[in-house]
Amino acid sequence: MNELDELRSRARGLIPLFYPSSIAVIGASEELSKPGGIVLAHFLEDGFQGKVFPVNHRQKEIKGLQCYPAVLDIPEQVDMAVIAVAVPLVKGILQECIAKGVKGAIIFSSGFAEVGGEGIKLQEELKKLVNEHKMRICGPNCMGIMNYNNNMMAAFTYSGSGNFPVNSPQASKTICFLTQSGGFGLSVAVTAVSQGLGFSYYVSTGNEAESDFSDFLAFSVDDPQTSIIAGYMEGIRNGKKLALVADMAREAKKPVVIFKTGRYEASSRAALSHTGALTGSDMVYSSFFRQKGIIRPESIEELLAILTLLETKTILQGEKAAIFASSGGHGVIMADKCVEAGLEVATLSEETLRKMSKLLPSFASVVNPIDFTGMDLISQSLFKACAEIVADDPEVDMLIFSYWVPKNIEEHTWEQLIQLKNSTSKPVIAIIMAGMTGAALEHMVHLKRQGIPVIAGLDFAVKAIKKIVDYTFKVNSARQEIIRPVSFLEKERVEKMLAGYSPGARLSESQAKEILLAYGIPVARERRAATAREAVSAAEQLGYPVVLKIDSQDILHKTEARGIKLNLASAGQVEEAFKEILANARKYKPGANITGVLAQEMLKEGTEVIVGIGNDPVFGSTVMFGLGGILVEQLGDVSLRVAPVCENDAWEMLQEIKGHSILDGMRGKPPVDKRAIVEVILKLSQLVVDFPQIAELDINPLIVFEEGRGACAADALIVMK
Amino acid sequence: MNELDELRSRARGLIPLFYPSSIAVIGASEELSKPGGIVLAHFLEDGFQGKVFPVNHRQKEIKGLQCYPAVLDIPEQVDMAVIAVAVPLVKGILQECIAKGVKGAIIFSSGFAEVGGEGIKLQEELKKLVNEHKMRICGPNCMGIMNYNNNMMAAFTYSGSGNFPVNSPQASKTICFLTQSGGFGLSVAVTAVSQGLGFSYYVSTGNEAESDFSDFLAFSVDDPQTSIIAGYMEGIRNGKKLALVADMAREAKKPVVIFKTGRYEASSRAALSHTGALTGSDMVYSSFFRQKGIIRPESIEELLAILTLLETKTILQGEKAAIFASSGGHGVIMADKCVEAGLEVATLSEETLRKMSKLLPSFASVVNPIDFTGMDLISQSLFKACAEIVADDPEVDMLIFSYWVPKNIEEHTWEQLIQLKNSTSKPVIAIIMAGMTGAALEHMVHLKRQGIPVIAGLDFAVKAIKKIVDYTFKVNSARQEIIRPVSFLEKERVEKMLAGYSPGARLSESQAKEILLAYGIPVARERRAATAREAVSAAEQLGYPVVLKIDSQDILHKTEARGIKLNLASAGQVEEAFKEILANARKYKPGANITGVLAQEMLKEGTEVIVGIGNDPVFGSTVMFGLGGILVEQLGDVSLRVAPVCENDAWEMLQEIKGHSILDGMRGKPPVDKRAIVEVILKLSQLVVDFPQIAELDINPLIVFEEGRGACAADALIVMK
Repeated sequence: MNELDELRSRARGLIPLFYPSSIAVIGASEELSKPGGIVLAHFLEDGFQGKVFPVNHRQKEIKGLQCYPAVLDIPEQVDMAVIAVAVPLVKGILQECIAKGVKGAIIFSSGFAEVGGEGIKLQEELKKLVNEHKMRICGPNCMGIMNYNNNMMAAFTYSGSGNFPVNSPQASKTICFLTQSGGFGLSVAVTAVSQGLGFSYYVSTGNEAESDFSDFLAFSVDDPQTSIIAGYMEGIRNGKKLALVADMAREAKKPVVIFKTGRYEASSRAALSHTGALTGSDMVYSSFFRQKGIIRPESIEELLAILTLLETKTILQGEKAAIFASSGGHGVIMADKCVEAGLEVATLSEETLRKMSKLLPSFASVVNPIDFTGMDLISQSLFKACAEIVADDPEVDMLIFSYWVPKNIEEHTWEQLIQLKNSTSKPVIAIIMAGMTGAALEHMVHLKRQGIPVIAGLDFAVKAIKKIVDYTFKVNSARQEIIRPVSFLEKERVEKMLAGYSPGARLSESQAKEILLAYGIPVARERRAATAREAVSAAEQLGYPVVLKIDSQDILHKTEARGIKLNLASAGQVEEAFKEILANARKYKPGANITGVLAQEMLKEGTEVIVGIGNDPVFGSTVMFGLGGILVEQLGDVSLRVAPVCENDAWEMLQEIKGHSILDGMRGKPPVDKRAIVEVILKLSQLVVDFPQIAELDINPLIVFEEGRGACAADALIVMK
Repeated sequence: MNELDELRSRARGLIPLFYPSSIAVIGASEELSKPGGIVLAHFLEDGFQGKVFPVNHRQKEIKGLQCYPAVLDIPEQVDMAVIAVAVPLVKGILQECIAKGVKGAIIFSSGFAEVGGEGIKLQEELKKLVNEHKMRICGPNCMGIMNYNNNMMAAFTYSGSGNFPVNSPQASKTICFLTQSGGFGLSVAVTAVSQGLGFSYYVSTGNEAESDFSDFLAFSVDDPQTSIIAGYMEGIRNGKKLALVADMAREAKKPVVIFKTGRYEASSRAALSHTGALTGSDMVYSSFFRQKGIIRPESIEELLAILTLLETKTILQGEKAAIFASSGGHGVIMADKCVEAGLEVATLSEETLRKMSKLLPSFASVVNPIDFTGMDLISQSLFKACAEIVADDPEVDMLIFSYWVPKNIEEHTWEQLIQLKNSTSKPVIAIIMAGMTGAALEHMVHLKRQGIPVIAGLDFAVKAIKKIVDYTFKVNSARQEIIRPVSFLEKERVEKMLAGYSPGARLSESQAKEILLAYGIPVARERRAATAREAVSAAEQLGYPVVLKIDSQDILHKTEARGIKLNLASAGQVEEAFKEILANARKYKPGANITGVLAQEMLKEGTEVIVGIGNDPVFGSTVMFGLGGILVEQLGDVSLRVAPVCENDAWEMLQEIKGHSILDGMRGKPPVDKRAIVEVILKLSQLVVDFPQIAELDINPLIVFEEGRGACAADALIVMK
């Protein structure tokens, strides 16, 4: 069974947690102040059709149902157990469940890994137990699972509290919501349903002792009820698994929107103590999400905006917006915000302007953004007629209507918005200003029911639109082969070379370059020299001018050590440089093991970039790209992808750095050979896929020549895992 | 009378527009669909105590008041007129008002500069007329003035429409709101009052034919009712005037918060057509605002958040936040957002942790952010006790309480929040999640009345807090002398040199350097040479190595023209370089007037920066700073201030660029002499204050040496206005 099949099979194994025919509530109670009381009330009151067995050895009957002392006393088959007991009892209860043949359990109980110390050990035991018996669990320390398709609300927040997300009757029930914070997830979910969004499932994953975020994600990708997946994530442990599920989701064209926290150290600290999850470096998460087409909102409001656009099937395939605003000022702000978010304010075509000026003879000029209040005052239908003309303009990809709280807009205008939506294939989006009141919420829900997304908050709206445009582009772009294979012979040669190194070892520059060469990456020719005389003879073989560099595994930063001399044009210069370099290196790091110098051909002038391989505890090998010099060192201006990297990824990496325009030529220089950089990125990706034992690799610098002239590695470094 | 006195006197002249004893409503009407009807209704219904005279030649009486055919027919003194008639009539009516001795007028009528063409001419006539007779006007094309102190609502939006901002009874009425978009301003104002903010005045400035944004700002700075000034700005015409008022406001410790639009070209276009105002480059606005301590929110929501903090007198003097959150996830997000906004997540002191662990023995560890739900469950007063311990921690500058909509928080917790607020001198801020409902609004208003600011929306809240921290720092920092005066003799010498140049002329490099020298800016020594032989002799005088550079007014970018050769160490190299440079220059720009080459001393190695003078149509002369090379050219990484620049400004300019860490040393290099850069900035500022006829000046590069070693201008360029 390959990894994907295994993941899918694991996902199917979760079905009993969502669709059990019978549930045992262990720790059942009469009282609504206790988790075991709340969940039982849900099962009895919310319309769940399956069988429910309360388990509590201190009671005979709860709410009219017979109560069993233990799960083994239940005379019928039990598919799933909800466990709401104190920590010390959990293990024993799970053993009973296993004996009973229960397929899955939701464990509310807290006091496991999240409290550290003994809790971690308890959780490990629990994990071992369920894995041995292939039992599936959600939690511990979770808020439970809600299934809106069979009304199984296996959660310990009571519906009556107002803090429970109830789909509105007309909601479409297509969103599966996964959260690593139960409490916070609930508040997001309640806000979502108040805006008319509808859930298929809600899953609080808790400590993820056995089933994790990716397992539930895989379940929802394969689930026919779900077409959109939303999540709140603090951190995962297995990046490869998430990569597989993300590919499944992309294949299934189900958008995945994940609000990921822990961007900064200060907050990572909190995330750690919260779920015990390993928070990887945020940049790797960001890059990985981009690579896999996972949409990452920057705020909860933006998450809700994205879900609103997705749920109304607002297909956004271009960036050019026509903006209709309810005042001049409103239009100006919308235009600002659109451009800030990376959208374009459409330039209306001549024909559109001509048609509009026939309809609106009294308007001196029509420019985008369009102030629609004037039109609306003239005639109720004029507004719609104008909007239809604009919708027909090939320069327009979407129509944005921006106005203040509904009070400000007359009902007939909404109706025209709905008619317009039905008469055009272009997306129609309504954006309302902040200051959300009950009336605004009602307005949102009303228009959304007609297929028009209404988003509250200008900033969130435009960011959400841009993210959907990018997602649509990503999901529609062809999937690519991600390999730059090398011959069997070369691979075997590299394998032998690497086999000689112990963990943590560093390869010398010349050996690192040999490996690059084997993978088809051009390197600068060089000779090693132990004496000044050898250096001169090496220079003569290479041809003047040459570069001399210190050769020492103990000196990684040659420039800093003043261990490098460029453009040496004669034997005399080479001899002098040799001595100077040795002296500098000894001064820089007394006691360093110096094996001599490398004489290297002096490469033609080009642009210096850095390409490398890194290693992330969650996602594994990564490939990095940046511009040489201060941009990388001082501004950290690099881009990154998780290996394997496909060609589109590599091109995106080039575009993603802030200084990308440098690659297009500067100070009268021609553009650099970008394709050559892309090839190096792809070959490094292949190298680390073939040899994951490589922990780090730096090509610094890779000299890139002008278009069509290729690139050449001037220096290289490899560190083994 | 100096400029400041004149401005203050103009501000006093606006009093009749705000506090008239008698008002004539010209174009008065019975009908609430007409501006002249709405404004009259306001005067009669809202509690305005002054006299009101309707003017309309077609009616004898309106709403029980005698109606006059013309303003001249009114038998009593008229302080102010509200003009709500068609464009062609406005001029005649103003003439009558002048004849009547009316001191000021609010002109609703549109059809002036904002429609272009004939409208511009009409507005010019109107401006000339009122200026001649020293009459003050607001508008035309404005929505009017509302004064909440005397209930004079001189606006044409009706209170009954729900689109009219009415202060809540408990509101403090301290905010003056100025807006260049009447319609948009109203929607902001209505949202503001719904959140419990209270206005002293609301002014829609319209086309600003006579009194402009800065005049009204000056009025509100000197007005005793106002302690906070908020604005919506699309663009101003006179930067110097705004600078004066900003200084007045800073002196008076009245914060000015302006939401400025027109960041991008696409939207600037709309701003232009909207108010006819000149939209200057947005970067100059941003820099100017920072320089003058004007707070610039990025969104309307952030504007409202800032006003809430200011109105509750939340004094923020540090960046270290203790975060109490209603769930673990909520805390993580808050920490993320705080750090993103430039705040710090406070590290609680050992003592605090010790005290807390005594109170909370069951909590394994207490880290910031603090999840307060647990405490709240244990004991109602525990929460407050813990918060007080945290408030006492010297590492904590503010206490942030972040929770979901009020439903989620028990009333006793709010009460404890209020008690806490009263027991600590540290700022207490509540931040609630989005999904604003009526209940949330009520909650905001309730806590605000107790002096606790409640902000809806995490993103906006943290940004607003950071802006207030920065503002407080700015307003508390000492005002500085902004001059680096030069001797009378030097100044006279420069004056004579500049007098020789006609507008648009460029000074040669050597002359530009002479001017820099006169202002105490070190420059590289140099000699001009017309022949190779002269170049060699110049090099010998300067001492090898030298630099040769093309000397031509027609070639501004010497590097691009390959017209510069560095590090020439011998007569032979100088001769060769001379020929090569001339050949390159001729090839680069055939026909260029080449006056020879400059031989220049080769400066010691240092860091290349750019310092220069620019010119903005709104704000006048500016001083710019950036790092040499790609950072400036490709990333546009520069900072800027409007001249005159004070020392704090100059230090801020150094800190503001993205690559600022380069100044602290890199690749093992020592930090550069930052003070030397600051001095050059201040001297350039002085130069352009003394000689505003300088349009542009570039020192590119200024070579900065290590700390204590100064800086030296290697190249210079001056262009005259």
